[in-house]
Amino acid sequence: MKSKHDSVLHVVIAGAGFAGLNAAKVLARERKVRLTIIDRTNHHLFQPLLYQVSMAELNPSDIATPIRAFFRRRKNVEVVMGEVTRVDPDARCLHTTAGLLEYDYLVLATGSRHMYFGHDEWEAFAPGLKTLEQATEIRRRVLLAFEKAERAASPEALSQPLTFVIVGGGPTGVELAGAIGEMARHSLRREFRKIDPRATRVILLEGGNRILAGFHPDLIARAMRDLEALGVEVRLNTMVTEIDADGVRAGDERIAASTVLWAAGVAPSSLGRQLGVACDRGGRVVVEPDLSVPGHPEIFVAGDLAHVANEDGEPLPGVGGVALQEGVFIGKLLRRELRGAASRKHFRYHDKGSMATIGHNKAIAEIGRLRLGGYPAWLAWVFIHIYYLTGFHNRVFVMLQWAWAYFTRRRNMRLILGKGWRFYGDK
Amino acid sequence: MKSKHDSVLHVVIAGAGFAGLNAAKVLARERKVRLTIIDRTNHHLFQPLLYQVSMAELNPSDIATPIRAFFRRRKNVEVVMGEVTRVDPDARCLHTTAGLLEYDYLVLATGSRHMYFGHDEWEAFAPGLKTLEQATEIRRRVLLAFEKAERAASPEALSQPLTFVIVGGGPTGVELAGAIGEMARHSLRREFRKIDPRATRVILLEGGNRILAGFHPDLIARAMRDLEALGVEVRLNTMVTEIDADGVRAGDERIAASTVLWAAGVAPSSLGRQLGVACDRGGRVVVEPDLSVPGHPEIFVAGDLAHVANEDGEPLPGVGGVALQEGVFIGKLLRRELRGAASRKHFRYHDKGSMATIGHNKAIAEIGRLRLGGYPAWLAWVFIHIYYLTGFHNRVFVMLQWAWAYFTRRRNMRLILGKGWRFYGDK
Repeated sequence: MKSKHDSVLHVVIAGAGFAGLNAAKVLARERKVRLTIIDRTNHHLFQPLLYQVSMAELNPSDIATPIRAFFRRRKNVEVVMGEVTRVDPDARCLHTTAGLLEYDYLVLATGSRHMYFGHDEWEAFAPGLKTLEQATEIRRRVLLAFEKAERAASPEALSQPLTFVIVGGGPTGVELAGAIGEMARHSLRREFRKIDPRATRVILLEGGNRILAGFHPDLIARAMRDLEALGVEVRLNTMVTEIDADGVRAGDERIAASTVLWAAGVAPSSLGRQLGVACDRGGRVVVEPDLSVPGHPEIFVAGDLAHVANEDGEPLPGVGGVALQEGVFIGKLLRRELRGAASRKHFRYHDKGSMATIGHNKAIAEIGRLRLGGYPAWLAWVFIHIYYLTGFHNRVFVMLQWAWAYFTRRRNMRLILGKGWRFYGDK
Repeated sequence: MKSKHDSVLHVVIAGAGFAGLNAAKVLARERKVRLTIIDRTNHHLFQPLLYQVSMAELNPSDIATPIRAFFRRRKNVEVVMGEVTRVDPDARCLHTTAGLLEYDYLVLATGSRHMYFGHDEWEAFAPGLKTLEQATEIRRRVLLAFEKAERAASPEALSQPLTFVIVGGGPTGVELAGAIGEMARHSLRREFRKIDPRATRVILLEGGNRILAGFHPDLIARAMRDLEALGVEVRLNTMVTEIDADGVRAGDERIAASTVLWAAGVAPSSLGRQLGVACDRGGRVVVEPDLSVPGHPEIFVAGDLAHVANEDGEPLPGVGGVALQEGVFIGKLLRRELRGAASRKHFRYHDKGSMATIGHNKAIAEIGRLRLGGYPAWLAWVFIHIYYLTGFHNRVFVMLQWAWAYFTRRRNMRLILGKGWRFYGDK
C-alpha cells in the first residue's frame, strides 16, 4: 500500500451490483481517489425487479442503467467492461479479460450465481433469474408454453405446456409463481381460442417446511392463501431429484411440465476462494468487522460474496439491502482513511424490514414489529421499490408502466424474442 | 371456393406486418368470416422505428405489440405462431410448422428479408435491420465497439473499433448513419476516459450516384449537409466487393472497421414463387389490379411480396404506407364480396409523401409539392410516426421516451445484452 499521504490512490471495484455501485458512488466524490470499476456487463441491474422483466411487466432498460452513465461527470472514475479471471492479493493486482489491473485498495463485490447442488446439467432445463438475459429467456419460455398449448393437437397434449414448475419457495420463487398464476388468470384470459389459460397449473416446490422462511408465521399463512387464490399449488418438504426437458421428479411424483424455473440456491463468485483466507461452507469470504479480509486491510469484500455475521452470529442474508449498506460503509470508511483517520469503524446492518410480493395488490411486509399483508403491504412495496430504484429515468418509467398495468391489467412486454423461437417439434 | 352464401368463410392471412395486420383489422369485424392469422413471431412490428431500437433510443416493446392483443375481443379470429413452409394453390392450403391450414381466401403478406446479392456469407459480418432480434444485435455491436475502443492498448488500435460502415444510402442507411454520428458526438461524449467518441468515423456507402433516391435534389443536398454536420462521410458510386470481420473493401479501398451494417437490399419471401404465376426479376408476385393472383381470385398478395404497378407502370416501393393501404384495400374488397358485390375495384395508391430522418431536429419530407427540411420536417416526422404507431400504449410510451431523450439527449436503452458479450480477444 502506498502511503496515505501520496497524491492519489487507486481503488479498484470489481462488480457493479448494489455493493460495488454504492461504494463507487461514495468514493467518486473523493479527489484523492482514482477509481476503476470493472463489471462483466455494461450496466447496473436493479435485481429486486428482475422477475417483472421475466414476467413481461417491465422492459430490461427500466431496471438497468449503463454504469458509465452514473459517472459521466467524474473524471477520476474509469469504467471497464470485462471479467476478473484471477485475484492476486500478494501482487495487489487483478487479472482480467481487459488486462492487468493494479490496485492500492480493492473492493471485491462480484456477487453470486445460481447453484444446482451438483446438478449443473439442470440449468439448461430450469434457468435461474440473475441477469437480464436470463429474464428474457424465462419470458420467452413462459410465453412460448402458452403458444405451444394453443397449437396442441389434443386436449391431453395441453397439460404439459400449461404446467409450470418453480423450484424454491423464497421471495423469487413466490414472485414468479404468483406472476405466472396472475398472467394466466388475467392478462392472457381472452387471447386464446383453443385453450383456457385458467387451466394453467403453477406448482411451487419447496424443500423446507415453509415458504418465505424468515417471515412471521402469520404472514407466511397469508402468502399461502394469496398464492392459492392465484391457482398456485404449494408443495412443502418436497425435494427435486430430477429435471429434464419434459418435467421434474419431485419426491415420489413425476410432474410433466414444459417450463421449469429455478429459484432454489445461489453460490458466491469463485473469486473469494482465491484470497487464501477462510470461507464459509458456501464459499463466502468470512470478513473482519470492518469488511476487510483478514491479513489484507487493503481488500474489502461485500455483497453476496461476503459472510458477515450479525449480533447473533448468524450470517446476514444475501439481499440487496445488505449489499447496499456494505457498499456505502466501505466507501465512507475508505474516505475517512484517506483523509487521515487512524482507526476503522465496524459495520452494523440496519434492518429496514423485509417484503415479498405475490401479485397485483398482494404482498407481505415485516418492518420492525409492524406486519402488513394484502393491499397496504403491496402499496408499501411499490413505493419502496420506486424509491430505491437507481436512476431518475428508471423511476419515472417504472412508475408509468406500473400505473398503466394497474389500470389495464395488460402485460405490454409480451414479446417472444431470440433465435430459438421455434417450437421443439418444428422441423 | 365455397358459395358466398355459405355461413362462414375461412380467410387465412400469412404475415402480420402492415399489410396482413390491416387486412385482418378490417375483416375481423365481419361476422361471415373466420380469420386465421399466422406469423413467425408473436408480435406486429412497427418497422419504421426499428432503427431507434437498434440505436438504443426505444425499447423493443415500444414498437411491437402481441398480435393476439389486437384481436382479444374478436372470437372469430385465431392467431397462430408458426412459419408457412409451402403454399399449395390447387389444394387451397398452407403447409405450416403449426400444421395444415385450409383456406377459402388467402392473403399472402410474408414480406421480405435482407439480400446480399449472392454473398450470403456477408450476413454474419454485416447484419441487416428487419427484426427486433437484429435490432438488438446491431445495438450490441455498436455499443461494444465503443467499449472495445476504450480498452484498446494503443492509439493506433482505436481506429478500427471507432469506424462504422453502413452499406446502402436509402432511408434506413441514412437513419443508422445519422444516429451513430449523433450518439458519438452527443450521447456518449462524457462517458469515456481514453477515447474521444467524437473521433468516430461513420462511412455511408452508396452504389448509386445519390443517397435517398426518389427525393427532390434540394432535399438530398440538405440531407447530405445534415449528415456531414454529424460527421458522416458519404461515398457515392461505391460498390462493396468484400465484407469480413475486419472491415470492407469499397471500390479500390480497404476500410478497417469493427462494425458494418447492411441496408442495401431486400428480397421478397420465397413463397411468391410457389404460386406458379409470373414474378418480377426480384421475385415479387405480379398481381392483378385487384391485388389477386392471376387465375386465383381467392389469393391476394400484398406488401413487400407484391409487385403493384403505379400509373406510370413503375412498381410501388416496398414501404409501410403501400403495404398498409394494400391491406386495408384487400380487407374492404373481401368484405364487399362476402356481402354480395359482383365486381371488384382496382387498387389505387394514395401517395401521402415521403420522409427520412437524419437526427435530432433534422429530417427531410416531401408531401405532394411541399418540401421540408430541418426542424419543421423533423417535427412532421415525429407526429406522423406517433399517429401511425400501432397501439395506444406504444403511442404514449414512445412519446414519453422521445420527450425524455429530446431534453436530456440521453439514450437510456444502452444495454449490451446477449450471450456473445465477450470481446473477440477474450479467452
